Amino acid sequence: MLKKKIHDIIFFADTKEGKLFDIVLLFLILLSVTIVILESVESFKSQYGDYFENIEWAFSILFTIEYIIRIAVSRKPLKYIFSFFGIIDFIAILPKFIALFFTGSHVLTTIRAFRLLRVFRILKLAKYTGESNKITKALIASRVKISVFIIAVLIWCVILGAIMYLVEGEGSDFTSIPKSIYWCIVTLTTVGFGDITPETPIGQFIASVVMIIGYGVIAVPTGIISAEYTSEKISEKEQKKSCCSNCNTPRLKNVNALYCHHCGTPFETTL
Amino acid sequence: MLKKKIHDIIFFADTKEGKLFDIVLLFLILLSVTIVILESVESFKSQYGDYFENIEWAFSILFTIEYIIRIAVSRKPLKYIFSFFGIIDFIAILPKFIALFFTGSHVLTTIRAFRLLRVFRILKLAKYTGESNKITKALIASRVKISVFIIAVLIWCVILGAIMYLVEGEGSDFTSIPKSIYWCIVTLTTVGFGDITPETPIGQFIASVVMIIGYGVIAVPTGIISAEYTSEKISEKEQKKSCCSNCNTPRLKNVNALYCHHCGTPFETTL
Amino acid sequence: MLKKKIHDIIFFADTKEGKLFDIVLLFLILLSVTIVILESVESFKSQYGDYFENIEWAFSILFTIEYIIRIAVSRKPLKYIFSFFGIIDFIAILPKFIALFFTGSHVLTTIRAFRLLRVFRILKLAKYTGESNKITKALIASRVKISVFIIAVLIWCVILGAIMYLVEGEGSDFTSIPKSIYWCIVTLTTVGFGDITPETPIGQFIASVVMIIGYGVIAVPTGIISAEYTSEKISEKEQKKSCCSNCNTPRLKNVNALYCHHCGTPFETTL
Amino acid sequence: MLKKKIHDIIFFADTKEGKLFDIVLLFLILLSVTIVILESVESFKSQYGDYFENIEWAFSILFTIEYIIRIAVSRKPLKYIFSFFGIIDFIAILPKFIALFFTGSHVLTTIRAFRLLRVFRILKLAKYTGESNKITKALIASRVKISVFIIAVLIWCVILGAIMYLVEGEGSDFTSIPKSIYWCIVTLTTVGFGDITPETPIGQFIASVVMIIGYGVIAVPTGIISAEYTSEKISEKEQKKSCCSNCNTPRLKNVNALYCHHCGTPFETTL
Repeated sequence: MLKKKIHDIIFFADTKEGKLFDIVLLFLILLSVTIVILESVESFKSQYGDYFENIEWAFSILFTIEYIIRIAVSRKPLKYIFSFFGIIDFIAILPKFIALFFTGSHVLTTIRAFRLLRVFRILKLAKYTGESNKITKALIASRVKISVFIIAVLIWCVILGAIMYLVEGEGSDFTSIPKSIYWCIVTLTTVGFGDITPETPIGQFIASVVMIIGYGVIAVPTGIISAEYTSEKISEKEQKKSCCSNCNTPRLKNVNALYCHHCGTPFETTL
Repeated sequence: MLKKKIHDIIFFADTKEGKLFDIVLLFLILLSVTIVILESVESFKSQYGDYFENIEWAFSILFTIEYIIRIAVSRKPLKYIFSFFGIIDFIAILPKFIALFFTGSHVLTTIRAFRLLRVFRILKLAKYTGESNKITKALIASRVKISVFIIAVLIWCVILGAIMYLVEGEGSDFTSIPKSIYWCIVTLTTVGFGDITPETPIGQFIASVVMIIGYGVIAVPTGIISAEYTSEKISEKEQKKSCCSNCNTPRLKNVNALYCHHCGTPFETTL
Repeated sequence: MLKKKIHDIIFFADTKEGKLFDIVLLFLILLSVTIVILESVESFKSQYGDYFENIEWAFSILFTIEYIIRIAVSRKPLKYIFSFFGIIDFIAILPKFIALFFTGSHVLTTIRAFRLLRVFRILKLAKYTGESNKITKALIASRVKISVFIIAVLIWCVILGAIMYLVEGEGSDFTSIPKSIYWCIVTLTTVGFGDITPETPIGQFIASVVMIIGYGVIAVPTGIISAEYTSEKISEKEQKKSCCSNCNTPRLKNVNALYCHHCGTPFETTL
Repeated sequence: MLKKKIHDIIFFADTKEGKLFDIVLLFLILLSVTIVILESVESFKSQYGDYFENIEWAFSILFTIEYIIRIAVSRKPLKYIFSFFGIIDFIAILPKFIALFFTGSHVLTTIRAFRLLRVFRILKLAKYTGESNKITKALIASRVKISVFIIAVLIWCVILGAIMYLVEGEGSDFTSIPKSIYWCIVTLTTVGFGDITPETPIGQFIASVVMIIGYGVIAVPTGIISAEYTSEKISEKEQKKSCCSNCNTPRLKNVNALYCHHCGTPFETTL
């Protein structure tokens, strides 16, 4: 009985206690991530280093206990362990312990930030989750297209990288092909750090060609996702328009019905 | 009577006096913003510093008087005070007075620039306001989608920032996690200042992955807003097409009507 | 008679002579622009400076003569003079003469490059002109939307510029508000040169916010133009689909016609 | 008979041997490209330079033999030689031999990376090829539009480049018009390396204008490709919706049919 109650508090945000638990948990996660971030700033570390260290340990132990309780109370422990949040919860407690052997790895506790995605659950934002699913769906629907696209771009980057390495040659920023490939990616994605730049006229000419190609090419993934979204949106709208908003009965097509012939609800749009 | 007249001159641009008032006001706002901007340039300040100081005070007092008159003559002062322009008008006169205590804050008088949005009122550009509303509407309609998107991007930035901090380590540009997160945002948004850049091969490899992700990811908000706009546009067009342009009667669907069956206006498009 | 013949050769590309004339002209324009560009390169100038100077004068005089002949032979000289190409032709011969008084202004002869747009005329690419018109049309249709958008962005840049100037303060790259505004534009457009970058944590935080806004904001003009294009494209397709491809008779809607009821041409698509 | 068998193994991936051959080949190509890339890194080269040199020769000879066999066994050797992959196969073996005369050109063996596109054949991903074709189709459909667009952008870059060269003048980064044009392209494509930046206030003002134009302009190719994709997507969907999913019979329009009148399959969508 107690196990069921704890289970409901921990896994659902329906009851008052469950909601409170989730809010406190999110607050603690946010705090623990903030502390790891702040600790990396030299001036904070030198002053409050010891406090940070202790707080981090406290958080790690706390989250470890929480993880164990989650497993203990869940009806199907394996299902939880291998669920998205189960894996995140586990990975999020590891770094601090690993840091005992490899210095510095504790900053990976920021992976805990993923747990903040639970915020959508508390806010009961089915709408948020719905939108999130739509984005994910659009991305999955364009998965194949975008993979083909990225493979093609990478092959181009390898070849253009080799050409730039050859053209710019010794004494330039392009000291090796991997670096040239890195430059190609920086340029094609229009990020353009400027840490590596062509100096020779011919190098600048090739760079110009690369940039203009990149300019046209950036349109492709945008076009793909736009098309996915727009067609989805339009069919949603049409579906809505061609059925009565009240009883969902399809509208008659061959008369210009102003009212639903089934329930009499007035239509807002003409067909 | 006088109060009503002043009210109409100040708040409307319908009469000749009202229009003149608005034009003069806009000109003064533009001038005052320009002077604040110019004053910040060292060479101008050293030469004309005192003049600028005096002119700024004159403007601030002038706009304060204008603000008081606006409140005095408006029928519902509270409604004005808490309206969009009322708040802007108030905030725009504050900085100069605050600057008496905190040096430098007078540059915030540039917030006055927002008042220039009144220009659309003078130009009687209902069309402009309409378009502005459409943009705002599209942005609001995509509000939830874009919030989910930005939260997800920020969580990624925190984690990638921590990884880059760990990978690049001591002696690199990535001196702290906050700086790494800043770099991640600079990179994912394809701004790419180049003030912080990865130096190690593995850092450059991770940066490449981040950029290619960013490349695909930039397509998402664009796709969302495109879909919003396009579906809006298409239903507008269809609505227009399926009704008579003269009497707005819906067209008969089951005959290929060439003229409106109600008023006889010829149709331009076939259905 | 001779006047008419010269007129046809110069203004049209229909006859063999007219085509030849246009090709030679385009070649000369390309050559003259190339020479101005090459002359600006120090190493070329020091070696061939005198030749370049002479060639440029030769071109300028040649194009001046061409301009005079164009006026002389055209039936409506004023119409030509104030046409798009008439104005370009005139502006393109000016800089060399102005350079007699203001050194350096001769590089503006590169404005001659606009004359290369005539290439579309030779190639008889009605298709090119058509597409060009479509782009122009889409840009004009979105004119109001994009103006509102740019004004709003500029007002934001002024205010954000002032804030960055205040925050970064003395000793930073943000030495004046105009420079800060320039930085804002560089950042919001995702160009990100990196010549001016925030150094303080709070400046980097504000910059991050600016970039994320810019990330969402870049979607707006893209969305606007996409919507314009897509809706145009779709109505074109629908128009094509709902009429017989042979006699353009509208298809009957209430029967699933497989052949045009007027001329018997089979339809390719179901309605 | 042997010839036919070798032909099938080399050119098809249907049989077990054919598939194995293709996988081994792809692995060798990937390995050889990786080695060329690694060899360009100084630290690897100094240590393993001789090994790399030998392995590269081995690969080049191997691929040359493969190329000869391909010609020998193919039924129509000329068709293979001038096919896309035939040309790539030939170009990919050249650089190593050319490198005997021109040092450094062996890095062009990375062009071999194009051969990796065969991966789609092994994976039997008709879907991948389909998507790839769709992208290619969309790009070809927008070919004319994008050419006009790029020509217009290049002409603008020449003129803006000349203006920036004139404005920034001596002692700036804009040392010649070609360099200014390069800067223009870097800026308009929003890459923004920052290796060349305007220093004078007027130069920064013009740069701001260029960037804001670029901001609007980047929307054009995206809009073009989005429109192409979206309209394609929508007509696909409509085609699917207006026919029975089972027997492909067009749906009756004037009755709100819930089942196909030909085979009785229920419709999922209302019309």
